[in-house]
Amino acid sequence: MIDQHRRGFVLAAGGALAATAVGSPALAQPGDKKIGYAIVGLGGYGLGIIIPQFKNCQHSKLVALVSGDPDKARRVAAEYGVPEKGIYNYENYDSIRDNPDIDVVYVCLPVSMHAEYTIRAAKAGKHVLCEKPMAVSSAECEKMIAACKAAGRKLMIGYRCHFEAFNLEAVRRARAGEIGQLRYFRSEHGFVQRDGSWRLKKAMSGGGSLMDIGIYALQAARYMTGEEPVAVYAHEQTDRKDVRFREVEDMIQFELEFPSGVIGSCMSMYSANQNHILLMGDKGRIELEPGTSYSGNRLWVGRGRETEITAPPPGPGATQWAGQLDHMARCVVSDRQPIVAGEEGLRDMRIIEAIYQSAREKRRIALRA
Amino acid sequence: MIDQHRRGFVLAAGGALAATAVGSPALAQPGDKKIGYAIVGLGGYGLGIIIPQFKNCQHSKLVALVSGDPDKARRVAAEYGVPEKGIYNYENYDSIRDNPDIDVVYVCLPVSMHAEYTIRAAKAGKHVLCEKPMAVSSAECEKMIAACKAAGRKLMIGYRCHFEAFNLEAVRRARAGEIGQLRYFRSEHGFVQRDGSWRLKKAMSGGGSLMDIGIYALQAARYMTGEEPVAVYAHEQTDRKDVRFREVEDMIQFELEFPSGVIGSCMSMYSANQNHILLMGDKGRIELEPGTSYSGNRLWVGRGRETEITAPPPGPGATQWAGQLDHMARCVVSDRQPIVAGEEGLRDMRIIEAIYQSAREKRRIALRA
Repeated sequence: MIDQHRRGFVLAAGGALAATAVGSPALAQPGDKKIGYAIVGLGGYGLGIIIPQFKNCQHSKLVALVSGDPDKARRVAAEYGVPEKGIYNYENYDSIRDNPDIDVVYVCLPVSMHAEYTIRAAKAGKHVLCEKPMAVSSAECEKMIAACKAAGRKLMIGYRCHFEAFNLEAVRRARAGEIGQLRYFRSEHGFVQRDGSWRLKKAMSGGGSLMDIGIYALQAARYMTGEEPVAVYAHEQTDRKDVRFREVEDMIQFELEFPSGVIGSCMSMYSANQNHILLMGDKGRIELEPGTSYSGNRLWVGRGRETEITAPPPGPGATQWAGQLDHMARCVVSDRQPIVAGEEGLRDMRIIEAIYQSAREKRRIALRA
Repeated sequence: MIDQHRRGFVLAAGGALAATAVGSPALAQPGDKKIGYAIVGLGGYGLGIIIPQFKNCQHSKLVALVSGDPDKARRVAAEYGVPEKGIYNYENYDSIRDNPDIDVVYVCLPVSMHAEYTIRAAKAGKHVLCEKPMAVSSAECEKMIAACKAAGRKLMIGYRCHFEAFNLEAVRRARAGEIGQLRYFRSEHGFVQRDGSWRLKKAMSGGGSLMDIGIYALQAARYMTGEEPVAVYAHEQTDRKDVRFREVEDMIQFELEFPSGVIGSCMSMYSANQNHILLMGDKGRIELEPGTSYSGNRLWVGRGRETEITAPPPGPGATQWAGQLDHMARCVVSDRQPIVAGEEGLRDMRIIEAIYQSAREKRRIALRA
C-alpha cells in the first residue's frame, strides 16, 4: 500500500477529499514493469526538473524524448539512458504510436502548445500528463478532455502540490479540525519575471502571472478549502510602460467566495517575490511560507508561528515530482482516474477566465456550479 | 526637540508625509505647565489603557473624569490624584466650561456617543481628542469638525499607531525606498469578539469588526502607502445564526485601489485572531506581525523574515499613548493641527461607508477624490 498514509485525505479532482486512497493492492509493486514516459519539450522544466526525477520513481521510467533540437535530444538521451529509437522531433511526433515502450506523454511545452500535443498524443494511443496551466482557454481544455476520452486514455495535469508533503499535511490538519471552522484563506504567489521569457508572450502563455504563478494560489484555495468558489472579483494592475508587460498582466488580485462562507483572497504578481498560504479558522491558523516551492517549504500550525511542523508525514513519493509521476503510472496500471485529471485543469481555467473577465469589467462574476 | 527623530517622516493627516516635524522650539518643554485632560468614559479603554498613561507623559496630565458611576469616579480620582472639582457626570458635563484646568477632553465612549460628547466639549470651549472610529457616520464626523472649527478648538482622533515606533519605522523605511517601488499592501486585523460587548450592538457601535478592528487595516493602508484609495470592493461574510452577529458584521474583506497602482488587500474579522501588515515592493518587503498591538509588535525588513528590526528609533513618547497625548498637548500649546485631525477620521469614515456599500451592493465603489 504505497499510498496508505494518504488514505482518507487524498485530494480528489474538484477539491473534495477522495473517500479511498489512490493506491490499492492491485497496483504495481516495486519490481513490476515500470510505466514508460516520453517527455515533450526539453526546456527548463522538462529537462531541468522532470527528467532528473525518474531516478526517484518506483513505477515510472524515462523512455523517450521529443525535442526540436536533435543535438540536445541526443545529449540528454545519452545522459539518461534513453535509446535512439526513443528520440523524436515535432515532425515525427505522431509516430510515438508505434513505440510500445511509451505509455505516457508528459507535455512540458509552452502553454499554447499544450492542447495540440495532448490531442496528438491521445490520438497516438498514449496517456497524457500535461503541465499547468492546462491550456490557453477552457475551450481548449474541453477539446483535450474530449480527445483523451475518445481515445480511452487518461489525462492528468501537472499539479505537483497535490503530492507535496507540507501541503498534504496542511490539508490533513485543516480537515481534522485543528484550526476549528475555516473562515478565511489567503495566498500570495509572485516572483520577479525576467524579460525575454516566453511567458511574457501572450500567444505562447495565454496570459501573465495568473496563468503561471497565480494558479498556485487558486489551486491552493481549492484544495485547502475543499470547496469550489461561487463568485470572483479581481483587480489587475500592470505597468504597461514596463517592457515585460506589454502583452500580459503583472499583478492581479482575486477574491473568491466559497459556499461555506470561507473568504479566499489571492494575489498573483510578476514584479515581487512572495509564496505564502494562510488558512484561518476560528480556533487557530495554518500557514505555509514558502508554500509551494520546489524545496524548503515550511508549515506552522497554531495561533501564530510558535509551532513549526518540520517533519510532516512523507508524501506519496520521494519528491513531489516522483509522487506525481508514479501516481499517473499507478492510475494507468490500475485504470483509475488521476486525482488531478483534465477536469481539474478545466475548472481552474474557467475560474481564471472569470478572473480576467472580472478585472476587465471591474465587477463581481458569479461562477457556474 | 522632542520629535527630532521623526523629522521628515511624520505622518500628516491625509496620509501624506509632513514636511516638518511636529515639534518646534516654541513648543512646551518639560517643566512647563502641562496640558490638562478630562477623560470621558471610564470603560476598558479610558480607565484601563489611557488613564495609566499620563505617568509616561511629558506635557499632559489628568485633571478631570466624566463618568456615570460616581463611586467609580471617586475611586479612580483618588487613585490618580484628580481633585474633587474634576469629577463630572453626564448631566453636569457641560459645566466643564467653568473648569480652566481642563484643556482637552478625551472621548472614550461607545462610538454612538462620540459626536454628542465631542460637540458639547467644543461648545464648552475645550479641545477634543476622540477615540476611533470617529463616529457612526461621516455626517456625524462633519458635524464634529464643524463644531470644533466654530469653537476655534482642535480635534484629534485617537489613531495611536501614528505614534507607535514600529509603525513609524516601517513607514520611514518604505519612504526611504528600502523595498523599492511599493506594489502591494496587505493587512488583516481580527480577534474573537466576546458575546455581550457593546460593540455588537449596532446602535452603539455603528458597525461590526470593520469599525472596531478593521479600521486599523484601513488606516495602515493609508499611512503605509501615503496615498488615498480611489476605489474599493468589499465582501462581507457573517454567520447570522451566531448570536454575536445578529446586528453587526463578522468578516469583511476589502480591496483598495491606490492612484500609484499599489493594490491594498485588507481583512477584518471578529471570529479569528490576526494582526498583520505587509508591504511588498519590487525589491523586498516590510512585514509587521503583530503590527498594531498594544505591545509586542514585531518588524521585519528584507526578502522575508530573515532580518528583524528589534530596536527601531523610539517613537515620540515613552509609549504610543504617551506620544499621542503629548502630541495633542503640543498642538494645543503651539496652535498646530494634529497629524490625525478630525479630517483624518472623516476620511476613514467615508471609506468605511463605501466599503459597507460595496459589500451590500456587491460592486466596486469609486471614491471621491
